[in-house]
Amino acid sequence: MQKAFSDDERKAVYRAIHERRDMRHFLNKPVAPDVMQRLINAALHAPSVGFMQPWRIVRITDARLREQLCEVVERERITTADALGERRDEFMKLKVEGMRDCAEVLVMALMDDRERYMFGRRTLPEMDLASVACAIQNMSLAARAEGLGLGWVSLFDPSDIAALLKMPAGARAVAILCIGHVERFYDAPMLETEKWVTRRSIDECVSENAWPQAR
Amino acid sequence: MQKAFSDDERKAVYRAIHERRDMRHFLNKPVAPDVMQRLINAALHAPSVGFMQPWRIVRITDARLREQLCEVVERERITTADALGERRDEFMKLKVEGMRDCAEVLVMALMDDRERYMFGRRTLPEMDLASVACAIQNMSLAARAEGLGLGWVSLFDPSDIAALLKMPAGARAVAILCIGHVERFYDAPMLETEKWVTRRSIDECVSENAWPQAR
Repeated sequence: MQKAFSDDERKAVYRAIHERRDMRHFLNKPVAPDVMQRLINAALHAPSVGFMQPWRIVRITDARLREQLCEVVERERITTADALGERRDEFMKLKVEGMRDCAEVLVMALMDDRERYMFGRRTLPEMDLASVACAIQNMSLAARAEGLGLGWVSLFDPSDIAALLKMPAGARAVAILCIGHVERFYDAPMLETEKWVTRRSIDECVSENAWPQAR
Repeated sequence: MQKAFSDDERKAVYRAIHERRDMRHFLNKPVAPDVMQRLINAALHAPSVGFMQPWRIVRITDARLREQLCEVVERERITTADALGERRDEFMKLKVEGMRDCAEVLVMALMDDRERYMFGRRTLPEMDLASVACAIQNMSLAARAEGLGLGWVSLFDPSDIAALLKMPAGARAVAILCIGHVERFYDAPMLETEKWVTRRSIDECVSENAWPQAR
């Protein structure tokens, strides 16, 4: 394979990285099957610890099942709101998912039977989750390049998803992904625009040879 | 921001996704400072759960500290090999990192004081790690677009890294990243070429409305 990217190719990769948004607003319009195939293929070509490929993807095409997943998320949204205490009302006003409007809903999960994979995980067993997260990020960037939005929902009790999808013991859902056409992409992360949190300074996150000390 | 990517832009994003490799062979040649800045900026623009931005990046420029990190990894490499039992010798023959040859070494870590972030984490506290993994994947793809290799090393005891970098309680290192120029990119994942593991079939990973059953 050729090593260098052209300047235009390089810029396109950065464009996807910087214009990707976690989306919660979708248009009611289907996604073409070949596009979905490219997105899933992008996920399956993420790096994984010891090449264990721990990702499992369940595509939700059954309307009743999608509705049940929505109910699971709505239940956790209320519980999270209550747990937030003084920020409860502020949280309840946020749009946290677009599961009823988006074209496609995927459940991303960790496979069962992961204990026997030791390469790169003896001291850091959670690296399997890191691999699934890379798969989701590949899909997010591919979706942005396709002009599609993707939203990652983690407001659910994984045991509820396990029951709905008849998952084996040891498997664990880590994301419900909403994918679909959008009217526009947010100019900035929605939680920044809504002033839920502010962007951290580079000094708070990056340092040399020792732990970062915010200045 | 404009919604659509051109065909060429879209192809460039997929090219980065499909030609990215976890690299362990590097050339002894520095990376330009502005390129490093772009890579770090790519990491800082990953998605994060509740926009918590839990990533901390420590750039290792001190040669002695890099050597100490190498020793931490070498120790875990031996321990992992011993734990692998019958695959011990096969594992010991694999090149698992390029920390001594690469231009740049970064430690990626989870910040301390994460308990107070509840948005999207009440039932899935590990979503903070998923966010850091997305940051690393952004950096991997940006590196590929820059014609640079990146390798993710997770063969270490996080408490050893915490001690070396004087990390606060609650912070946790999740990756040592090796970044640098390479002679060429591997045609396929090294662990696939070396027959450590095989690529899983799509049927094993993807299914509809219920858990995938390998056929």
